[in-house]
Amino acid sequence: MDSFSLARKKFEVRFPDTLKVPTRLSKGDTPEIVSAKNFRKDIKTLFPITSGQSLSRLGECEKSPSEKFRVGVVFSGGPASGGHNVIAGLYEGLVALDCLGEMVGFLNGPGGIIHNRTTVLSATHVADYKNTGGFDLLGSGRDKIESDEHLKMAANTVSKLELDALVVIGGDDSNTNAAVLAEYFASKDLKNRVLGVPKTIDGDLQNEYVEMTFGFHTATQVYAGQVSHIARDILSSRKYYHFVRLMGRAASHIAQEVALNIKPNKVLISEEIYENKSTLSQVVSDLVDLVEKRSKSGKEYGLVLIPEGIVEFMPDVQLLIAELSDAMSKYSEEFEAASEITKKISLVSTWLQAQSKELFLDLPKSVQEQLIADRDPHGNVQVSKIETEKLLGWMVETELKERKSASKFNFQPHFFGYEGRCAPPTNFDANYGYSLGRTAAHLLVQGCNGVMAVVASLQNPPEKWQPLGVPLTSMMALEKRHGKMKPVIKKALVETNRKAFQELKRQEAVWAVEDHYTVFAGPHYFGPSELVDLIPKILELR
Amino acid sequence: MDSFSLARKKFEVRFPDTLKVPTRLSKGDTPEIVSAKNFRKDIKTLFPITSGQSLSRLGECEKSPSEKFRVGVVFSGGPASGGHNVIAGLYEGLVALDCLGEMVGFLNGPGGIIHNRTTVLSATHVADYKNTGGFDLLGSGRDKIESDEHLKMAANTVSKLELDALVVIGGDDSNTNAAVLAEYFASKDLKNRVLGVPKTIDGDLQNEYVEMTFGFHTATQVYAGQVSHIARDILSSRKYYHFVRLMGRAASHIAQEVALNIKPNKVLISEEIYENKSTLSQVVSDLVDLVEKRSKSGKEYGLVLIPEGIVEFMPDVQLLIAELSDAMSKYSEEFEAASEITKKISLVSTWLQAQSKELFLDLPKSVQEQLIADRDPHGNVQVSKIETEKLLGWMVETELKERKSASKFNFQPHFFGYEGRCAPPTNFDANYGYSLGRTAAHLLVQGCNGVMAVVASLQNPPEKWQPLGVPLTSMMALEKRHGKMKPVIKKALVETNRKAFQELKRQEAVWAVEDHYTVFAGPHYFGPSELVDLIPKILELR
Repeated sequence: MDSFSLARKKFEVRFPDTLKVPTRLSKGDTPEIVSAKNFRKDIKTLFPITSGQSLSRLGECEKSPSEKFRVGVVFSGGPASGGHNVIAGLYEGLVALDCLGEMVGFLNGPGGIIHNRTTVLSATHVADYKNTGGFDLLGSGRDKIESDEHLKMAANTVSKLELDALVVIGGDDSNTNAAVLAEYFASKDLKNRVLGVPKTIDGDLQNEYVEMTFGFHTATQVYAGQVSHIARDILSSRKYYHFVRLMGRAASHIAQEVALNIKPNKVLISEEIYENKSTLSQVVSDLVDLVEKRSKSGKEYGLVLIPEGIVEFMPDVQLLIAELSDAMSKYSEEFEAASEITKKISLVSTWLQAQSKELFLDLPKSVQEQLIADRDPHGNVQVSKIETEKLLGWMVETELKERKSASKFNFQPHFFGYEGRCAPPTNFDANYGYSLGRTAAHLLVQGCNGVMAVVASLQNPPEKWQPLGVPLTSMMALEKRHGKMKPVIKKALVETNRKAFQELKRQEAVWAVEDHYTVFAGPHYFGPSELVDLIPKILELR
Repeated sequence: MDSFSLARKKFEVRFPDTLKVPTRLSKGDTPEIVSAKNFRKDIKTLFPITSGQSLSRLGECEKSPSEKFRVGVVFSGGPASGGHNVIAGLYEGLVALDCLGEMVGFLNGPGGIIHNRTTVLSATHVADYKNTGGFDLLGSGRDKIESDEHLKMAANTVSKLELDALVVIGGDDSNTNAAVLAEYFASKDLKNRVLGVPKTIDGDLQNEYVEMTFGFHTATQVYAGQVSHIARDILSSRKYYHFVRLMGRAASHIAQEVALNIKPNKVLISEEIYENKSTLSQVVSDLVDLVEKRSKSGKEYGLVLIPEGIVEFMPDVQLLIAELSDAMSKYSEEFEAASEITKKISLVSTWLQAQSKELFLDLPKSVQEQLIADRDPHGNVQVSKIETEKLLGWMVETELKERKSASKFNFQPHFFGYEGRCAPPTNFDANYGYSLGRTAAHLLVQGCNGVMAVVASLQNPPEKWQPLGVPLTSMMALEKRHGKMKPVIKKALVETNRKAFQELKRQEAVWAVEDHYTVFAGPHYFGPSELVDLIPKILELR
């Protein structure tokens, strides 16, 4: 074993005191997430058995059920640090309650459930993988169990394995899928119950009960480390703007968190751009203003953070993308027939309305190509593939020329993403993942179904964290997906009225011109508590 | 002050015992670096005063000179971690010898010497910046002091400031420039002497005396951390090849070091490619073989490391670049007149010889554009701007299609560079930078001129490191630059007969098919000695 993992083995996970003894459920109110209120009736129709449950709190009791449970567990979607600790918490929780029959892991995501691909998890597995990053104990995958055929196959699998429960570790879509499975298995009178565990580095699975997902903290600490190194380079070389795009899909939580840690000169927040209806050229124009302002105080350098999903939030780009997708479907034959990319570009432009046409033709050629070349299987433009950090850099360059600006502007683009998903979990994510797993163990032996294991009060020390079971359907709304109304757990975007964003706004003007970059060099796994026991800023500012 | 810097302040730098007491020089043989032997006569002509010096060893003596010295210090070129510690070692070394008159720092690189832009360095500065990353205490820059006018201005500055010595902290070019300054000042009978300190993250300033530069260790530890996180992601998601390009200019030291740390499936070493005269398509073909081989054992994923300078080492690409540069100069009017990029590309292709033409036309369009769009002020193609990680990925994709291969291949490109230059120095770089600074202090008070401060025996604990003064001219050869023969310190490339490379070759076949990725998660600044007291693998394997 490598030296790091060996040393990290000595870390002792912390978890809620409540979970250190046998518990019983005390049912609370029937919760309903604000955003889900309007869909109460639809959800009741779609989930007649599992909806309408009340919140489960866990209170001390004398002894656990004497039953042994056979449990399956699966990773779903992109990896996030702390996942192995969820499994460790689940396993060790069941052992502590003397309720462990057998635990099987499904291989490579939900596809493993469909096709019954499993491995039996032992105490050795758990011990070896505890406190390690990644999902490599089982692998992960993005399959969804939605079609009748797949639902049947999944039911077959859990029946064959005689599972009492399935724990799905995943994001918003995977937890929606967990709810669908819970309802389906119940409707078929299977004994197998389904629990969800909230995972995602993006931080977009949040609500009144879910304060944060596991994996977010480690990812943002990795990015904060990289960005802080770059910030120091900026002050050393004093000749570049660094435009850093950060993973995180639609929501800007990651960019916001890294900004609160490192204090860049500017962080673009997609949700603010959307609220202000800012167009691409307005965003560029604001950046150019920043460059010119800094230039006047002799600073021809700076640090700008950009969330991955930003262009989707600009009304003019939204319109262009919609028109492009429509046009390329409508005239697909003509489009495919065009022999080469330059022809395709000029052809496509003739199909656009005046405003979109102008925007499209103003874009750099490589971005035009990205927009029409990469489409998903549904024919939609894949905005996430656009290298926004370069697009914005080029556009700032162009506008500075148009303004005949005296400011010097050279930029270096970066994209940080994959390296944040599988780092060894920070103490916070190690404790949090483990606590979620142990919460799931307790909910499971109490017979919960269609419930998410949640741990609340995360600003407190782990011993004081509050384990909860929150009905999955209470978080659900209906959304149009591929033309059909579907139940979904809504993605939580950055809310501009919350403390974290307000803090950014409060500092914005100062950070823009002064340079308050923080030295960070994390994540830290060893050393003083003020470095290793950090929690996400968004929780500190909750 | 941020929590990290506050905690890191407690780190106590270690340095050679030899430098803990006053020293005197004991002159050794007259050294001559092997690669420089053929140029002895030319160097003697160019550096009549400062060449032919012997090696300086430092031995204990009773007391320091009673003189006080006025010293200037400058950062030159790209930043590297440990630079602030060079200044700290120099300052505290002079204080310990009771020889500090005043120390001034030149601002933003050698330009600060030309234009006499300085700041006086105090004990507080030194204490505040000790053990921090970056060059932001003074800034840095890439100016060279070469023209008669600039040499005169530099002489003016050191005279005005009444400096006894100037310490240049820089890479190969900057140390060459230091030698030029040393000779020039001596030829003008100025009292100011010049010392060099070997810096660069690239590791390409190495020879019989210089075992490694400072900054290399921290940078490679940062990259190793990022790459190890990605390796864990690869095993979790099992669906991508990650192609990681690493900074490091021409030489492959950084890629080699990161590979020795993380054990990827493949690391391309430019110097090996050059020795084997491998063309671009051969390199691609080898990668495709690897992909197909792994695919046969069910692995549709992998990790490939790529050194920044790789394409310059392929004979076919070299030829293409040479022909392109020539053609675009020769037909520059016609080239500039072409209205748009597609026209320029087809125009340029007509000026190439058959072999280069075929290669050029086979390249993806965006690479064609990069090749003809970005030229340096001398009209040369800027190869470093080519995103080789994408180029290789695209070409592998294409060849797999041509082979009608059954292997799945999806790739994610990465470039890691700037984030490695300014991280807080590892213990090794903190100690090494500091020791170099203290060595410079001792050499300086002993009146050395045109000498590089060197610390040898770096595999040993810092207390046993050997401080040396190595004449700069002993490392020099003559090379054609911009059509003129110039004295240079030759860039040290990876030597395929050395242990480090041999170790890679020994493991190559195993790493290719099995997955031995190491968990790393560094650099570590706190924790057990086996994590914080690492030294570069290339030194371990020296």
